[in-house]
Amino acid sequence: MKIITMAHGAGGEAMQRLIKDVILKHLRFDPEVSVEVSLEDLDDSAVVEDIVLTTDAHTVKPIFFPGGDIGVLAVSGTINDLAVMGAEPLALSSSLVIEEGFPIEDLERILESMRRTCERAGVPIVTGDTKVVERNALDGIIVTTAGVGRRSESLDRNIEVVRRYREFEGRWLKDSNVRDGDAIIVSGYIGDHGIAILSFREGYGFESEIQSDVKPLNKMIERALHEGGVVAMKDPTRGGLANALNEFAAKSGVGIEIFEEKIPVREAVWAACEMLGIDALEIGNEGCVVLAVVREMAESVLQALKETEEGKDAEIIGYATKNVRGVVMRTSVGGRKIVEPPVGDPVPRIC
Amino acid sequence: MKIITMAHGAGGEAMQRLIKDVILKHLRFDPEVSVEVSLEDLDDSAVVEDIVLTTDAHTVKPIFFPGGDIGVLAVSGTINDLAVMGAEPLALSSSLVIEEGFPIEDLERILESMRRTCERAGVPIVTGDTKVVERNALDGIIVTTAGVGRRSESLDRNIEVVRRYREFEGRWLKDSNVRDGDAIIVSGYIGDHGIAILSFREGYGFESEIQSDVKPLNKMIERALHEGGVVAMKDPTRGGLANALNEFAAKSGVGIEIFEEKIPVREAVWAACEMLGIDALEIGNEGCVVLAVVREMAESVLQALKETEEGKDAEIIGYATKNVRGVVMRTSVGGRKIVEPPVGDPVPRIC
Repeated sequence: MKIITMAHGAGGEAMQRLIKDVILKHLRFDPEVSVEVSLEDLDDSAVVEDIVLTTDAHTVKPIFFPGGDIGVLAVSGTINDLAVMGAEPLALSSSLVIEEGFPIEDLERILESMRRTCERAGVPIVTGDTKVVERNALDGIIVTTAGVGRRSESLDRNIEVVRRYREFEGRWLKDSNVRDGDAIIVSGYIGDHGIAILSFREGYGFESEIQSDVKPLNKMIERALHEGGVVAMKDPTRGGLANALNEFAAKSGVGIEIFEEKIPVREAVWAACEMLGIDALEIGNEGCVVLAVVREMAESVLQALKETEEGKDAEIIGYATKNVRGVVMRTSVGGRKIVEPPVGDPVPRIC
Repeated sequence: MKIITMAHGAGGEAMQRLIKDVILKHLRFDPEVSVEVSLEDLDDSAVVEDIVLTTDAHTVKPIFFPGGDIGVLAVSGTINDLAVMGAEPLALSSSLVIEEGFPIEDLERILESMRRTCERAGVPIVTGDTKVVERNALDGIIVTTAGVGRRSESLDRNIEVVRRYREFEGRWLKDSNVRDGDAIIVSGYIGDHGIAILSFREGYGFESEIQSDVKPLNKMIERALHEGGVVAMKDPTRGGLANALNEFAAKSGVGIEIFEEKIPVREAVWAACEMLGIDALEIGNEGCVVLAVVREMAESVLQALKETEEGKDAEIIGYATKNVRGVVMRTSVGGRKIVEPPVGDPVPRIC
């Protein structure tokens, strides 16, 4: 009998196969409504009749970790998934499944954290659901958020700027929009979230130096769109930067070349990765986005990002190019390394 | 230490207190967007800038039961929550949390069932998420669906018809819209879903006669709105008909009088309730809705419902009235019984 394994949830190849060979195969049907970005696009959100919709279940362990908790994670993750499509996040739903015996004090901490994150982003939770299951039927709490967004003036303006420099099809920032020559920007340090949780969970001790950077990024993204020239964005959660870049490359049919020394990674995160034998590029993030920007606007978008608190450590890390296949990294010592889509997740249950 | 108990998820008073004293208290904030129906309305869906949003987590046990499974339940529940606001359901998201070791064959059965239900309703799943947790961190699978809907011509037409007979504020079918004189209609037999699951789970043997009636009701509801005169609708899930009617009464500030002999309950469901000491009015339903309709249109809406497969057993069960407080039932033997909001759930984990 074929069964679900941890790899099926790890954001790598096994999960891609589960999604394509099982989930998409069974859920496929042709609706009457106009679906501009569908399930099969495997983007961060879907777009139906100009309404943007996304969802994520959160099973992070432990639920409270250095720099955040399951509440800020759930709200930020859903807001960021809407924002990277170019949408203005409008409202969220929150669905709680709670184990009998769960401390109400912990629930209150999580809810407070959700509200604070909503306030920071300016996006309310407008509807919800609460289910309780018997003791041992669940390990604590699962928070599933969904979100809706809509087109914003900034998105229209952004696409107008893109079209000054090259052709651009469609009306949304899809993973498949990247073209030869586009600059690839990361909006901040990578690896903080995953290493902070892993270290705290396993008691490695790095958490004194590394905290999760989980946060809503819609205001930073709004600033970048207002500048203009962004063609695609991605929330590099499960599978990390390696997965995000490979999705851009595969869906857009273009190679991507990145430069190791340009990738913002904290010393402590490098050290932790080195010690634990983990590739920093494969660690899930919750506080940064990857942007593909028309080359002529790359510097302006970078400056716009750097002017925001959330994007002050942004860097141009490489370019889309026809000269390579897949994702290739120029290493600090001058070598070339193929960045494969991760097979599994080096750090499970961080989101 | 205060902890979460099963009663907190049971759709009765304990859950209402958890929602009001804990969840709403912490999540409350004033957003900039226009929220027409908010978290605090505790309706089946929220409405933000004319987009209708709802969500539900599904933890039904067992996941396959007579007449359905967690897949048809998740899709139907979310579509019905949108439809009872008067919205046209547009699209769904689906978030799966799966226990390591879960049979892929079972996952495929669930997904097939979701797709068939989507097809029946004409509403696609457009985005999703999949998480896997370690063995024993979860009892099988949780399916959380969210859905978006929008205003339909039928809703506008329906409200136009209402306004021929009386004043009607607002633009949506909220629980607070019921007024003195409105007729209360139930669209079909109550109790089938809860008793089918309970009987199957506990081996009582009624499941040979009683199957769950879980199904999407958007097309039936569309037919009723097209007829016109509906002021409020409710999906009588957790807490059953007793809870739905008490919510109408409390939020609308009007009494409701119902007639026991008019309530459609199957013989086998009565027998099961009798034997198990359960009140049929408190059992959660997934295949019928409760409608409040201006009295002058009640017969026409009833006929419209009866013309549909899903509503063929509909009945007018009573009226809103200033002459009683809360919900009062005239019993078959001529007595009067107060229908209280249920304290807990007589049949847990049926949705």
